Amino acid sequence: MSDHSETQQASVYQQSLELHAKSQGKMGLESLVPLETVEDLALAYTPGVAEPCRQIAKDRENAYKYTMKGHTVAVITDGSAVLGLGNIGPEAALPVMEGKCLLFKKFAGIDAIPICLDTQDSEEIIKTIKYLAPGLGGINLEDIAAPRCFEIEQRLIDELNIPIFHDDQHGTAIVVLAGLINALKITNRSFASSKIVMSGAGAAGVAIAKLLHSQGAHNIVICDSKGIISPDRENLNQSKKDLLTFTNPDAKSGELADALKGADIFIGISAAGVVSESMVTSMNNDAIIFAMANPVPEIMPDLAKQAGAKVIATGRSDFPNQINNVLAFPGIFQGVLAARAPKITQAMKVAAAQALAEMIENPTPDKIIPGAFDEGVAAAVAAAVKGLC
Amino acid sequence: MSDHSETQQASVYQQSLELHAKSQGKMGLESLVPLETVEDLALAYTPGVAEPCRQIAKDRENAYKYTMKGHTVAVITDGSAVLGLGNIGPEAALPVMEGKCLLFKKFAGIDAIPICLDTQDSEEIIKTIKYLAPGLGGINLEDIAAPRCFEIEQRLIDELNIPIFHDDQHGTAIVVLAGLINALKITNRSFASSKIVMSGAGAAGVAIAKLLHSQGAHNIVICDSKGIISPDRENLNQSKKDLLTFTNPDAKSGELADALKGADIFIGISAAGVVSESMVTSMNNDAIIFAMANPVPEIMPDLAKQAGAKVIATGRSDFPNQINNVLAFPGIFQGVLAARAPKITQAMKVAAAQALAEMIENPTPDKIIPGAFDEGVAAAVAAAVKGLC
Repeated sequence: MSDHSETQQASVYQQSLELHAKSQGKMGLESLVPLETVEDLALAYTPGVAEPCRQIAKDRENAYKYTMKGHTVAVITDGSAVLGLGNIGPEAALPVMEGKCLLFKKFAGIDAIPICLDTQDSEEIIKTIKYLAPGLGGINLEDIAAPRCFEIEQRLIDELNIPIFHDDQHGTAIVVLAGLINALKITNRSFASSKIVMSGAGAAGVAIAKLLHSQGAHNIVICDSKGIISPDRENLNQSKKDLLTFTNPDAKSGELADALKGADIFIGISAAGVVSESMVTSMNNDAIIFAMANPVPEIMPDLAKQAGAKVIATGRSDFPNQINNVLAFPGIFQGVLAARAPKITQAMKVAAAQALAEMIENPTPDKIIPGAFDEGVAAAVAAAVKGLC
Repeated sequence: MSDHSETQQASVYQQSLELHAKSQGKMGLESLVPLETVEDLALAYTPGVAEPCRQIAKDRENAYKYTMKGHTVAVITDGSAVLGLGNIGPEAALPVMEGKCLLFKKFAGIDAIPICLDTQDSEEIIKTIKYLAPGLGGINLEDIAAPRCFEIEQRLIDELNIPIFHDDQHGTAIVVLAGLINALKITNRSFASSKIVMSGAGAAGVAIAKLLHSQGAHNIVICDSKGIISPDRENLNQSKKDLLTFTNPDAKSGELADALKGADIFIGISAAGVVSESMVTSMNNDAIIFAMANPVPEIMPDLAKQAGAKVIATGRSDFPNQINNVLAFPGIFQGVLAARAPKITQAMKVAAAQALAEMIENPTPDKIIPGAFDEGVAAAVAAAVKGLC
């Protein structure tokens, strides 16, 4: 970053601290019913409240009718993989969880409860979340480290009958897919014909690879910090072994630079500056670059453009084409909660991405995806998801 | 109840159902910070949010400064002893928990999250609540069956460093103590000189007995559904055995009617109609009757008065002297949260009761305790509690 942008960044941090201190965090609870008189009290609390209790005791489904369950989700973390800050623990993760809840409220009108768990044991996390489920309409897992997050999500999907969504995986994957649909259109490519190189094999990387593969992308090569994930690598964890069942069809090995030669698309969910200008130049003409490391991308957009890239997206709001999860999760939960769907399916994720892509009538290199504050984003995603419930 | 009051009751239930259905429950989440622009997003969420996270990672105490922790409590149940409805399960308990959260917000401005756990195993409940603690400033246990509730509360007090309060025990006990302080004044009695008979040895009964004993009441006889809890009773559970260490000094046995002969004070937290007029007549002159079974008291106030009672309190808002927990818990939590006290001590409970009693300058038989909507109740209780932190 330049001195100027470093100063800007420092100022954002200082202002953010002040904002958080001023209101002691970002979320509170609000009353949805009046409570001004003894009569109000008799309806909202005893003795009247006994009647909704009895109706729910007769049929648990009535919880959707008489309680907050149907419009409430929990945003749950174990504090193990928070932003780029890593394993900072549950207390330190709370500002991010509250932020997420703020986005749920703002963009989808969903009541989200931030929950920061004081355990990083998968079985304990799974059990705790199952115990919390009766009062919840859905669960958004957040900032839980890979590969633990995969098991936790899958087990909860199998064992609960409310929607479970690990946003770091699927939120990112959906918005990447949406952006790529339009980037392919602009550069006259298809998923089937494109050579895709990814940097990063964490939660988001795995989900992106799976979602793109489901859309016909069969030439995906994934790199981690040690280079290309290839069959000749030793000590690969199970999640990376699983990736090899549908990626790296030519069993290539080498560095990220080797992988990028002749590639059409680069997708980075890794670390600042790992892609150089010459690596972009080595790619095919009109390359597509999604450099989403935060706050500093794998390559800065101006450098990528100079090196020949055609469409560039980042995770940042101060450049064009921000790949921002907030485009996906509010609408997805709005859709499944409205339809009372028990699961979020792969088809719903694809439909959400298509709906996001279709919001841009005439995609250009600088506009492949809606902005966070564009009107109607959550509603469009919710409608697409609900159509499949 | 008369036909008229039965009709009224049915109407309250119907209206309550409609109220709960209209807004799908009673609580939602609210945003405490603006979120209208890309700049707002950069402060409330990424990249700015990283800074409060870092400050809390450095020192967990900063969670009180930068997050909702300091003004947030959880209202937690396992659905095992809900109102008079019994073990109706976690979903059916949610309307009561939401109601409690509504009271926290209205009377103390505290943000309370309703949590209904899908387990009734003490160890699992304790563990789950410990996992939830990082994001909470305090925990209000609610509607958990005795004797399980005693162990859960004590273990959490010992193992967490945030205030834990089982309202069904201590909230009731505090308000009973407050009412009795003024009832004793009116009838020129003291705790030491009074013969006290209780009906009910559940969570509330045990806590009332302990709190009154701490104030010098040494002649307390407690009855359960099988009669007087006496040393010659077989198969008493541990909690009832513990009661015998400081109650029933003359080792009396027999029925509730036997216990009441010559008593000064009756305290009922049991069942409708277990006290007859003749039983009240058998008590000392100017008897004090706290008949708190809900919705139908142990004896109706007009009958108790005809039978010679001087001061009568119930749990109902449509009679004078309602013993209502809402007089205690909002102010108690307001006090300990403001002082960031790690525990709620016995001294704080007594101070809260005294503050409540002192709100009535000139107690009369029909006014021994403030009403739920009287001005300044929570503030007075909070000040008394905070003074001891």
